Amino acid sequence: MSGILELCKKAKVASAAMGRLGTTEKNKALLAVADALMEEHSDIIKGNHIDMENADANGMSDALKDRLLLTEERIAGIAEGVRQVAALDDPIGEILSMKKRPNGLAIGQMRVPMGVIGIIYESRPNVTVDSFALTFKTGNATILRGGSDCIHSNLALVKVIRKALSDCNVPVDSVQLVENTDRALVTELMQQRDYVDLLIPRGGAGLIRSVVENAKVPVIETGTGNCHIYIDATADLDQAVKIVRNAKLQRLGVCNAAESLVIHKDIAEQALPLIAADLASENCEIRGDEKAQAISNLVVPASEEDYGTEYLAKIISAKIVSSLDEAIEHINRYSTGHSESILTKDYASAQRFLREVDSACVYVNASTRFTDGFEFGFGAEIGISTQKLHARGPMGLLALTSTKYVIYGDGQIRP
Amino acid sequence: MSGILELCKKAKVASAAMGRLGTTEKNKALLAVADALMEEHSDIIKGNHIDMENADANGMSDALKDRLLLTEERIAGIAEGVRQVAALDDPIGEILSMKKRPNGLAIGQMRVPMGVIGIIYESRPNVTVDSFALTFKTGNATILRGGSDCIHSNLALVKVIRKALSDCNVPVDSVQLVENTDRALVTELMQQRDYVDLLIPRGGAGLIRSVVENAKVPVIETGTGNCHIYIDATADLDQAVKIVRNAKLQRLGVCNAAESLVIHKDIAEQALPLIAADLASENCEIRGDEKAQAISNLVVPASEEDYGTEYLAKIISAKIVSSLDEAIEHINRYSTGHSESILTKDYASAQRFLREVDSACVYVNASTRFTDGFEFGFGAEIGISTQKLHARGPMGLLALTSTKYVIYGDGQIRP
Repeated sequence: MSGILELCKKAKVASAAMGRLGTTEKNKALLAVADALMEEHSDIIKGNHIDMENADANGMSDALKDRLLLTEERIAGIAEGVRQVAALDDPIGEILSMKKRPNGLAIGQMRVPMGVIGIIYESRPNVTVDSFALTFKTGNATILRGGSDCIHSNLALVKVIRKALSDCNVPVDSVQLVENTDRALVTELMQQRDYVDLLIPRGGAGLIRSVVENAKVPVIETGTGNCHIYIDATADLDQAVKIVRNAKLQRLGVCNAAESLVIHKDIAEQALPLIAADLASENCEIRGDEKAQAISNLVVPASEEDYGTEYLAKIISAKIVSSLDEAIEHINRYSTGHSESILTKDYASAQRFLREVDSACVYVNASTRFTDGFEFGFGAEIGISTQKLHARGPMGLLALTSTKYVIYGDGQIRP
Repeated sequence: MSGILELCKKAKVASAAMGRLGTTEKNKALLAVADALMEEHSDIIKGNHIDMENADANGMSDALKDRLLLTEERIAGIAEGVRQVAALDDPIGEILSMKKRPNGLAIGQMRVPMGVIGIIYESRPNVTVDSFALTFKTGNATILRGGSDCIHSNLALVKVIRKALSDCNVPVDSVQLVENTDRALVTELMQQRDYVDLLIPRGGAGLIRSVVENAKVPVIETGTGNCHIYIDATADLDQAVKIVRNAKLQRLGVCNAAESLVIHKDIAEQALPLIAADLASENCEIRGDEKAQAISNLVVPASEEDYGTEYLAKIISAKIVSSLDEAIEHINRYSTGHSESILTKDYASAQRFLREVDSACVYVNASTRFTDGFEFGFGAEIGISTQKLHARGPMGLLALTSTKYVIYGDGQIRP
């Protein structure tokens, strides 16, 4: 079993070789990996079976067990995801905005791989393959550290991937798994500034906090979503009911689901009873302030804490505000900076909301559920960043790249 | 005197107001600051005088004292820098690549301020004004923490700036100085994830290492430069002599100066004696490997450590290699990832060097001394990033901005 430093050194060497790989070679290897996953599915399922038995023994919930389970059909879906990544445009090598300076130097930016990326995640084995495909396509070497719950699935998956890479004569150490899930090792990984260029934690709030707290390597935080729908005074009522239902209920456990309603007082008496009745018909609880409670008896009292809570359940908070200013202030105070939407017919309100709400994705008259790399047209997603550095919002292939300046001269010296 | 948390809270409030300021208001305020610096120069010089006296008492070197000194003329130069920033295009509010999705959503990226930026630097008071101007222009609120050596200069400068901002009715807390230079406070600043969006250390290697080690807030590392010139087998000899002289000697103490020569063996016997004689005529020492020593008796022995050293002095290391591969490997091993140049007439060598050398700026047939925001045409520079996240190479105004997705809908819900 390799120590972290050894994995990092191998990754660094592999990353240099990865940077030299052409698009055709990378795509061929990805397709070979997809085929191998299908061919070797029984070995993968064997590994997954051990994890499932351990899950039973540890009393894991049915919901979590369902996320952990691999079947032949699910493996086919995972392989199809790899084929889709192979089909995407390769961003590496693109030259951005080459310009000529007065002294004759031509200066542009070349899109290059990030280098070595560490991905730290929890118990979904599909993340293993998915992360490999996206980082490989962008010419990076990746160190994967999945949860102990799915270690046998991950071992089997990474073995199949590395075998396929080896058969294609591309660097096998472009993907490595931390086989020992001891927590001290993951902390060690987070400190390897000389070898790791970027860490991406993918998982719940606790995991992300731990990475952010302990990392010395740059991190892209993929955040939680306490998303807001603000119903402005001029909102279309019919649209408002539909968008709130979609944003809150279409899928409960996702980061782009709405967790809080903010309603302008001038429309609250019309809008809130309609929305409350619609949500209540799906057994969704509404926790609101006193004004909201006075308008609808379907609203139960909210505590201060409710406004800051990502429920991921059939609960939504509600707040009545007397102005757009108050709405923006409330949102910027309680939001996690993920996705917020204004429902309005008013031009100036829409523009101000877009400009002043400080979140990764800001919508007018649409459900927050669209915050997603596929919905945005990226063809892939490695996560949704809620930080402002490097990448903000859904991250596709570009988020896994860097740039360098390339400068063409013909003997220039600085005067 | 304010505690760090209080400064951070004020900055957060100011940053929201800064985000709403129009370009005209920002430029007017910058010009007012420039005027105020000129008008109040005697107060500033009075503050600087205390720092200069302390510098004498502490036995500061003449070189450092020169960097610390403010005169009426130097203040005029600093004010002129502020006017130049006012004249630059405002990047805030620009919408990048708005595209329509099949479902009718129009999705684009709006360029927005980063928010609250902490700048940690050493003893050059001009950095105070310069950092303010660039961060203010981009709509950010800034917390400045300069060195104790120039605290009285900084207090005077920030007082003048804040007075001018107040007169213009723009948020004075868009610029705040940490008045207590106790080291514990700077560490506290680096931990304020809830309030500070970005830290930029500007200074020597020790300062940058300390920020990177201690920060919990995202950092852009502005790095040191162990820059290489690689003289390929087909280099133009005359050009090579001139570029090496320029890159090594035009200014010694800068991060884009060349610190190491790498020479292809097929040209070494011609090139090295010419270059060595030229450098020796300026009393520049060459420390080389055995092959280089065998070619020119001006070359003294280099230790392993020499290849990793940023001399910032009249010394350069030299290494003879037998191939482009060996050159690239040597550079990627010892470089700090700042700037490297290949001198060659060969198309394939040039292209491979540009692609495979893993540095922020990679040149063909030009001096590394051009790595600079002004030389690159940005009109300003906040530093030179040697990290791969967010900004790499010279950083102008854009490096101080983030983006957010803005999405225009007309009632879309996710199917």
